[in-house]
Amino acid sequence: VDAPLPAARPRRIVVPSGGIGGARFLRGLLAAAPDAEVTVIGNTADDITLFGLRICPDLDTLMYTLGGGIHVEQGWGRDQETYVVKSELAAYGAGPDWFGLGDRDLATHIVRTQMLDAGYPLSEVTTALCTSWGLAARGVRLLPMTDDRVETHVVIESAGREGGTSRRAVHFQEYWVRLRAEPVAHEVVAVGADTARPGPGVIDALAGADLVLLPPSNPVVSIGTILAVPGIRDALRATPARVVVLSPVIGGAPVRGMADKVLAAIGVASTAEAVAALYGGRESGGLLDGWLVDEHDADAVPVVEALGVRCAAVPLLMPDQEHAAAMAHAALGLAAELKVAPA
Amino acid sequence: VDAPLPAARPRRIVVPSGGIGGARFLRGLLAAAPDAEVTVIGNTADDITLFGLRICPDLDTLMYTLGGGIHVEQGWGRDQETYVVKSELAAYGAGPDWFGLGDRDLATHIVRTQMLDAGYPLSEVTTALCTSWGLAARGVRLLPMTDDRVETHVVIESAGREGGTSRRAVHFQEYWVRLRAEPVAHEVVAVGADTARPGPGVIDALAGADLVLLPPSNPVVSIGTILAVPGIRDALRATPARVVVLSPVIGGAPVRGMADKVLAAIGVASTAEAVAALYGGRESGGLLDGWLVDEHDADAVPVVEALGVRCAAVPLLMPDQEHAAAMAHAALGLAAELKVAPA
Repeated sequence: VDAPLPAARPRRIVVPSGGIGGARFLRGLLAAAPDAEVTVIGNTADDITLFGLRICPDLDTLMYTLGGGIHVEQGWGRDQETYVVKSELAAYGAGPDWFGLGDRDLATHIVRTQMLDAGYPLSEVTTALCTSWGLAARGVRLLPMTDDRVETHVVIESAGREGGTSRRAVHFQEYWVRLRAEPVAHEVVAVGADTARPGPGVIDALAGADLVLLPPSNPVVSIGTILAVPGIRDALRATPARVVVLSPVIGGAPVRGMADKVLAAIGVASTAEAVAALYGGRESGGLLDGWLVDEHDADAVPVVEALGVRCAAVPLLMPDQEHAAAMAHAALGLAAELKVAPA
Repeated sequence: VDAPLPAARPRRIVVPSGGIGGARFLRGLLAAAPDAEVTVIGNTADDITLFGLRICPDLDTLMYTLGGGIHVEQGWGRDQETYVVKSELAAYGAGPDWFGLGDRDLATHIVRTQMLDAGYPLSEVTTALCTSWGLAARGVRLLPMTDDRVETHVVIESAGREGGTSRRAVHFQEYWVRLRAEPVAHEVVAVGADTARPGPGVIDALAGADLVLLPPSNPVVSIGTILAVPGIRDALRATPARVVVLSPVIGGAPVRGMADKVLAAIGVASTAEAVAALYGGRESGGLLDGWLVDEHDADAVPVVEALGVRCAAVPLLMPDQEHAAAMAHAALGLAAELKVAPA
């Protein structure tokens, strides 16, 4: 590999990320690498407009987590949240009622919607919101993957009008939250991704990175949609930085339920090695330099290494920030090994 | 007077109304005339868009009061209200912070804004919201004075850029709520009123009324703006029903503070007889058949009667629903006298 080697301690770390898992990992990363400048490329394909308000679940989860306002146990939404507005909306019979729209959270959506309506792109709105949450002071930038509209739809089967079944596409939030990913996902489509442009700073961040870490986010509907924005996958392939990924699958099941449903939709088994193969080793045109599997998946290590990807088995569960920091340490360690002996 | 006499107990009562005072009077009226069909023509010139949400303070006060959801002591806003969203908006530095935007109340604005954005006129939105509050079951219809945008602006003096003072117009809510009506009001302008059309049902309601009651609402920024919609004043003049008004001024001061500021702006003294003269007796092209002054203003009775308006002095304060019902009884009584012996 001819790419220049990163400095001993990577300063500029770029993390393409989904919501809960990515956010938890990032909290650990900030603890493990307090001096790093971390640029998060946030998935926006889960975004949805409800009650006329623009909601960006992954950006919000990242912002609240890194800003210290997250409901820690739940992993999403605000701490000390109340649901007065949601209850009143239900009293009006105004739907949908399946989305967890908290009062504190709502203020974010109101400010975002007003700024978007005033003509600001999502990236500037996100910067403004994150400034309020003090992210810059913590050395973190949060960049939406795109300012354009990309929306993940899931094709499911449902009862047809004249008996039998027919397929229809539902918004990812409806599939995930309302339907709890119970229906079989026949297809996952990132609507709008083909014409979307990378958000401001995204390509530059990847090009200037010392290290790229992919947290254990969903490989289809989080990382997959980020990679579906034309230019981002190529920038990841072209980055001089090492690309190290933490497996989102442990012991044959996704860390945070239901990812297997969307993996099945794209024909990928829910195993660490299958997802590693999905990303692919860099030498064969894929993305990976390194891959961390869970200690329970040590059997996968030789299979992944056969893809030309340096692999190690470490604990990959994040019950608390200490475990997340240990995972980040392990990822930084694997990256340092790659510096010495690239895969 | 050639107009047909109303039935002994008026069935169809029409009440053009502002917010708090009008709503309190209407609660009394529903108690005093439980069999009546009451049509309220609500002032919409106080309406304002804040945080991208359409807020109709007078319609909401009327709806919450008549639907049983009002904060009774305060007179506006929801009972058991919380202010979580407002506090979070303030944390974002999102202004303005002077408007009392409660969480429960917010749900109304969200539903309204979404329906307006979907293309429904305000009158249909109002009907939908009021249905949810059970107003029809209580024999009440709430009609916005217009579906068009009318906005009361108050011209005040403020510090100019280069020293000295200059005049500028502020939205009525800003004048009333933020500035607490402290600056001198040089002019009150109902922007848009000249081209507004009466809301659906408004003219028909006035034409088909058995009795029109004007509650002690602000004669300038509540009743005055309703009358400023072309066609409404004429319909009030032409109605076969008696028009009886309850004085909004007691003992030389408005019942609910600050109305004197906007009365001064139009050159009218804050006395019961001056406001009666502003409305005018029907015989001389005005609106009034009857006028109730407070018991403390008994001196005004002969002055008002000299305008050709039947006048009586009764207690006009509404500390509770019983007093409001007594006022409504008095108004119905004066109207019944007019039936026997029109002024």
